[in-house]
Amino acid sequence: MKKIAVLVAPGFEEIELLAPVDILRRLELDVQLIGVQSDSVTGAHNVTIQTDSTLAQLNPSEIDALILPGGAASWVLRDTPEVIELVKQTFAEDKLVAAICAAPIALAKAGIVAGKKVTAYPMDEVHAEISEAGGQLVDKDVAIDNNLITGRGPAVALAFGYALGEYLTSSAQVAELKSAMCY
Amino acid sequence: MKKIAVLVAPGFEEIELLAPVDILRRLELDVQLIGVQSDSVTGAHNVTIQTDSTLAQLNPSEIDALILPGGAASWVLRDTPEVIELVKQTFAEDKLVAAICAAPIALAKAGIVAGKKVTAYPMDEVHAEISEAGGQLVDKDVAIDNNLITGRGPAVALAFGYALGEYLTSSAQVAELKSAMCY
Repeated sequence: MKKIAVLVAPGFEEIELLAPVDILRRLELDVQLIGVQSDSVTGAHNVTIQTDSTLAQLNPSEIDALILPGGAASWVLRDTPEVIELVKQTFAEDKLVAAICAAPIALAKAGIVAGKKVTAYPMDEVHAEISEAGGQLVDKDVAIDNNLITGRGPAVALAFGYALGEYLTSSAQVAELKSAMCY
Repeated sequence: MKKIAVLVAPGFEEIELLAPVDILRRLELDVQLIGVQSDSVTGAHNVTIQTDSTLAQLNPSEIDALILPGGAASWVLRDTPEVIELVKQTFAEDKLVAAICAAPIALAKAGIVAGKKVTAYPMDEVHAEISEAGGQLVDKDVAIDNNLITGRGPAVALAFGYALGEYLTSSAQVAELKSAMCY
């Protein structure tokens, strides 16, 4: 079963975290919530969740995909050297790396967006960091560039999650799931 | 500040809980996660969240609105007499009562759907309980009948949350929020 690591840092956007987790677990993927600093983390809107394990416990070679939810957590992710190393290694192994909202700044910091199509939250400083790292910003809710998938913001978290699901399973499975979820 | 109680029971659908909470907290409403059985609750897709308080601690006269997320939690809500009493009292005081997915079965049990437009998850036993209680099922993602608002399923959780926001604040505030969330 494919193993997906979702990084949970303080200030994460609740919808951006939970929508992809919900969708990918419905697709029977092994989705692990990985606490970046601890195993109990509070989001941008004061919801506290328990993670399954922590970054210190993660074996990067065991995962098949990495997801970075956004919100204020984006800056924590960008400024955590262990996260940047994990992004670099996962991407270098041709595994899926995905980020939503402001979290693509961590992908920019890891140096993996050069020449890649990227979408992100429409905030000047976020777009500037991506552009400076050579990312090609596109005006889309979800941008798919091979094994790099990005999403614009909280309200597109479901579309982002479905795109990840299609990459990791199949269009047919996701089409069935969308129907079951009243999409 | 308006106080909104969101009932959190085992097996809640993560998106259905978190999308409205996220939206209503962005609108600066006082949203309280109320654990029905305890203050740490695990959802349908194995995400555990901490609640702000429990049902036993809730003073029903202090709340302005009540929200029931769905999933397997719907049956727990329906079968918890204290929840049914809370639904009855809140509705009798002309306050907003909202439910999504299968959770409208708890509104049916409380006897508040008779003659009301209701939407719910397209599952025969769910529709049957609502019809038998006199609810008028409508084929909509979100059904608004005065102070009774219902949503169809997980993928419409954002639209459901925005409808609650419009009822509790204003269309102008919600329009601005939708834009900020990239809706």
